[in-house]
Amino acid sequence: MNRLFHFPLSPFSRKVRLTLAEKRIEVELVEERYWEPNQDFLRRNPAGKVPVLRLNNRFLSESQAICEYLEETVPNPPLFPRSPDERFEVRRLCAWFDDKFHHEVTSKLLYERVNKKIMGLGYPDSKNVKSGAQKIKYHLDYMGWLLDQRRWLAGDVMTLADFAAAAHLSCLDYISDVDWNRAANVRDWYAKIKSRPSFRSLLADQVPGFPPPRHYADLDF
Amino acid sequence: MNRLFHFPLSPFSRKVRLTLAEKRIEVELVEERYWEPNQDFLRRNPAGKVPVLRLNNRFLSESQAICEYLEETVPNPPLFPRSPDERFEVRRLCAWFDDKFHHEVTSKLLYERVNKKIMGLGYPDSKNVKSGAQKIKYHLDYMGWLLDQRRWLAGDVMTLADFAAAAHLSCLDYISDVDWNRAANVRDWYAKIKSRPSFRSLLADQVPGFPPPRHYADLDF
Repeated sequence: MNRLFHFPLSPFSRKVRLTLAEKRIEVELVEERYWEPNQDFLRRNPAGKVPVLRLNNRFLSESQAICEYLEETVPNPPLFPRSPDERFEVRRLCAWFDDKFHHEVTSKLLYERVNKKIMGLGYPDSKNVKSGAQKIKYHLDYMGWLLDQRRWLAGDVMTLADFAAAAHLSCLDYISDVDWNRAANVRDWYAKIKSRPSFRSLLADQVPGFPPPRHYADLDF
Repeated sequence: MNRLFHFPLSPFSRKVRLTLAEKRIEVELVEERYWEPNQDFLRRNPAGKVPVLRLNNRFLSESQAICEYLEETVPNPPLFPRSPDERFEVRRLCAWFDDKFHHEVTSKLLYERVNKKIMGLGYPDSKNVKSGAQKIKYHLDYMGWLLDQRRWLAGDVMTLADFAAAAHLSCLDYISDVDWNRAANVRDWYAKIKSRPSFRSLLADQVPGFPPPRHYADLDF
């Protein structure tokens, strides 16, 4: 059986879960407390991060490399467009969310409010939380600007860039840190993504000690 | 004229410079003090980072997305192997160096010693420097372990993974932070990369206030 070692509120795990579900690749989900010393896990991934995908007895790590691999080996349905120019834009936006958004927003809100507590690292640093709450506005505006010109984030078709963005935003929505009233087109975009069958498993996630708000799993939020 | 907006000791800029040079794509190098507020630069790349490549009047950012784009549009010489399994390993290792190595080593040594001073952010934090100096040993050992089994980092042919790694190590070598005596096979690997024509421009870099050590540009180091 294929397995994904993941953590429910890891945006990188969520990106891979969405990709697997879109491509209808069945995996068993195994929750991994990756911050606790675990020699077995480090053997599977010396980087010590989630997600790790066990696929046909091979261990794959690094979420973007995994998604590119799945796209090359299971091309349908495609999550990348055909032309190099459009593919560039998908990869640029994946990096935008997984690097810039992650650094400026996800790590400042989710990691301060949730991960720190779970990992026993103490209380949220209010300076970080404030900074994340400020920066997410700019990112939502940027998404709104993109969606003024395009149906989906990277162009006129849905791509991995949409899943990368939705992976981060859904984790933040779990802790009510997304103001969906800021931009109507971003809300509409999220409603479309959220109603996909591939999203169901994410909406069912529960992290002990952090119950999600009611709107989190509501398709009509 | 195509242009690369870069910073000499940016490992991400160096990865793109090596890729461009290997593929014989001529660009004019424009040094960008990306940490200084500059509306022109932010218009070219709202992420405010280097490198930014102006290619046929389009602005491209995010180093990995740029390199993948160049591979798709100028396939020769190839910097990715053909099989999905091998391509996965290239991307995994690019992420290893650009994310993990960058976080644990480059940002702790290069950014503390050089970037902080250039950006007017004060003196190096000795705790960070110590941590980076410790962690680089583990990374060199990991590279040695890979090179015990393979001719190049990702397999039997030279790939973008080698350039990603060499981009970081060459920046650290500029400030004498790499102990080449730690692993003979890592030293041999670097000697092979360093002697490539594509490396020449990197070896000629000079950062005011930080003269490189003599061995930096020496092919017989």
